[in-house]
Amino acid sequence: MTKDRFYIEDAGKHDGQIVTVRGWVYNKRSSGKIKFLILRDGTGLLQGVLFKGECTEEAFGEFEKLTQESSIEVIGKLRKEPRSPGGFELGVQSIKIVQVADPYPISLKEHGVEFLMEKRHLWLRSQRQWAALRVRSEIMRSIQEFFDDRGFVRFDAPILTPSSCEGTSTLFSTPYFDEKAFLTQSGQLYGEVGAMAFGKVYVFGPTFRAEKSKTRKHLTEFWMVEPEVAFADLEDNMLMGEQFIEHIVQSVLSRKAPELKILERDLTELENIKGPFPRISYDEALKILEKRGIALPWGEDFGAPHETALGEEFGKPVFVHHMPSDIKAFYFKQSDTVGGPAVSGTGKYALGCDLIAPKGYGEIIGGGQREESAEVLQRRIAEHGLSEADYSWYLDLRRFGSVPHSGFGLGVERTVAWMTGVEHVRETIPFPRMLNTLRP
Amino acid sequence: MTKDRFYIEDAGKHDGQIVTVRGWVYNKRSSGKIKFLILRDGTGLLQGVLFKGECTEEAFGEFEKLTQESSIEVIGKLRKEPRSPGGFELGVQSIKIVQVADPYPISLKEHGVEFLMEKRHLWLRSQRQWAALRVRSEIMRSIQEFFDDRGFVRFDAPILTPSSCEGTSTLFSTPYFDEKAFLTQSGQLYGEVGAMAFGKVYVFGPTFRAEKSKTRKHLTEFWMVEPEVAFADLEDNMLMGEQFIEHIVQSVLSRKAPELKILERDLTELENIKGPFPRISYDEALKILEKRGIALPWGEDFGAPHETALGEEFGKPVFVHHMPSDIKAFYFKQSDTVGGPAVSGTGKYALGCDLIAPKGYGEIIGGGQREESAEVLQRRIAEHGLSEADYSWYLDLRRFGSVPHSGFGLGVERTVAWMTGVEHVRETIPFPRMLNTLRP
Repeated sequence: MTKDRFYIEDAGKHDGQIVTVRGWVYNKRSSGKIKFLILRDGTGLLQGVLFKGECTEEAFGEFEKLTQESSIEVIGKLRKEPRSPGGFELGVQSIKIVQVADPYPISLKEHGVEFLMEKRHLWLRSQRQWAALRVRSEIMRSIQEFFDDRGFVRFDAPILTPSSCEGTSTLFSTPYFDEKAFLTQSGQLYGEVGAMAFGKVYVFGPTFRAEKSKTRKHLTEFWMVEPEVAFADLEDNMLMGEQFIEHIVQSVLSRKAPELKILERDLTELENIKGPFPRISYDEALKILEKRGIALPWGEDFGAPHETALGEEFGKPVFVHHMPSDIKAFYFKQSDTVGGPAVSGTGKYALGCDLIAPKGYGEIIGGGQREESAEVLQRRIAEHGLSEADYSWYLDLRRFGSVPHSGFGLGVERTVAWMTGVEHVRETIPFPRMLNTLRP
Repeated sequence: MTKDRFYIEDAGKHDGQIVTVRGWVYNKRSSGKIKFLILRDGTGLLQGVLFKGECTEEAFGEFEKLTQESSIEVIGKLRKEPRSPGGFELGVQSIKIVQVADPYPISLKEHGVEFLMEKRHLWLRSQRQWAALRVRSEIMRSIQEFFDDRGFVRFDAPILTPSSCEGTSTLFSTPYFDEKAFLTQSGQLYGEVGAMAFGKVYVFGPTFRAEKSKTRKHLTEFWMVEPEVAFADLEDNMLMGEQFIEHIVQSVLSRKAPELKILERDLTELENIKGPFPRISYDEALKILEKRGIALPWGEDFGAPHETALGEEFGKPVFVHHMPSDIKAFYFKQSDTVGGPAVSGTGKYALGCDLIAPKGYGEIIGGGQREESAEVLQRRIAEHGLSEADYSWYLDLRRFGSVPHSGFGLGVERTVAWMTGVEHVRETIPFPRMLNTLRP
């Protein structure tokens, strides 16, 4: 199996051995009688060197035929070479060409983003894209590890839903036999079902928003992880979010340092992402914003400049809690005062908590404590103009053993952007879906 | 955080300690002066016992008020009790009622499936459903573990796609701004992109088929994992599939034995799922079917009775390879003879491999070696009436460093059905989507 095969990322375990590298030509150059071949096998880059006497005569001939991205199998001897990227080089003995590639459209020089997005299926082979998606893969892994290690049950919510979580204006929809189905924009309400059945669950899957926005933080299709815990309040929820973010950061730092180096990510900045994260109320946030010269009237939601300013104020992720009820969804538990007792559905404040990432990467976590009274929830559903019949199953959770419960959603792509320092979320997922982008 | 809180599944670590159980009333009964309370906290069941002298006077009063599924917090002393399910019981000291539940619609007796499906959000709390989805969660975990441990990169393929993998007749679709998008039925073609960029990847997400079939093996929305490996042939692929299935079975056996017991699953049968799995060609399969009295003409695909018969023949999973090209998708590499050299696009046989599970659970794995010649693939695309323009990016993989590569897809729900022994796939996912089933 592939497990027993040599891969470049395992070079350290094979020093001095003869190995076969199966991969592609990333680059090549000649320096007098010595030929250099940069090999790529999907797990890393390795410099191959062709010396007369060490490799076959044929290998020199084959070398001449190789174009960028040609596929090859190269046999050679691995040896330490501190000057090489990765610390090893391959003393090439023989080259077997699998295919000489057509002239490759992406050179190692600069191209426009529009062109590269059209060639996304090839662009992914380039170093920065490759590195960013390796970090993504690690983030996906560490997300699962965090919850699996803590006894959470993975609870896959449906993608096709009969109604929406927060209104239908930005939903994709499909004919579903004789009905209409909407693509989910959050698995949270289903996650609450799971919390009552399994105690603590996480929903983890793609979600969809048919928004026409063209910002660097929006995709129409993006992955979310949404934990939900029974018998947990707002404080528990912030603590879980904090530990969760710390876990992801530590995993990426300890397992993907070479990729972060390729991306020229400032590691000190990541190393400083340690709890406790500041926790401020919305009211306190308004004071900070006023002080920083971008005052916001009470009751309005943060925009990108406000998030950026809050990030600058603290230099690390910050939780903002107790937002105005009117700008939050119907399912939030409410409170009359910040720090006062939670009351059911009469309060000015929603028991929400959003985690704002530094440097303008925006809201990474959005969550809070859910309303647990069936009566209040019925009223809220009516106030939001939603159909009670559509939510009767959701109300059942409050009729049959209602408990305080909380959860949050973390957007994967924004988290990848933040961890990698990549400017635009389109580079944080293999095939981004945006307004005007449905291909390849 | 929830990590530090007591959960019933950790009872073994707290013998003799005073603990707080936060959960729900699964059942209760009285036996003279002793009261029994079966508690459910989502991680397991625990019997609470109320003795006079050991618990407060109030607790007896509260006990009387408790209805099925009422939410409570119970303080008591954990002690070994071999006769109890789970091996422990709780000497109840006090009971705090969170909510007295309304009369619960699902009793511990039998109900019709149609009724239970309507109450799916509550049915999940019942023992068998709970156990099956705990096994599902473990299968999801072990799938990722297998690939993560072997250096595969998780590669999330898009759900919204501009064209289909194998034709559009059974696809859901949504307006996508000024275009139309289809919900993916397989991430494989994108996975092939990933294999060329990362060497070995796995796509893992929901997939969709708008089939009107009403069998026990079909859902319209189901999860698939699809590994794809560069420089891998049909043999490599079967070996990977075999090791993968063994890993899942071992993980479920070692971590979810109590759940399998609740499901009355025959453990010996699972313990016997060990490689090597038989590998037979389609031609050999036809001979076996003829011998067993259900002959199939050459060129036709297996139906459920044929899969069941092949399962009975071997009593363990069996790979069927080298199917007729005409019943397989356009992207399969082909061969003139079984066991002969693979040829490009002129062959009678497709280099596919399907893994048939025993006992009629059907095709669990479907996969094979992909065509690597751009010319042959162009011809196959035309033969299948597909648009070459739609697949130009896919053809690019054969123009720029084409290599032999293989992969497969494993359906999660069928695998869960097989592992748990659950008859119908609708009980293997929290909220199954089927013809006529879109709620809750």
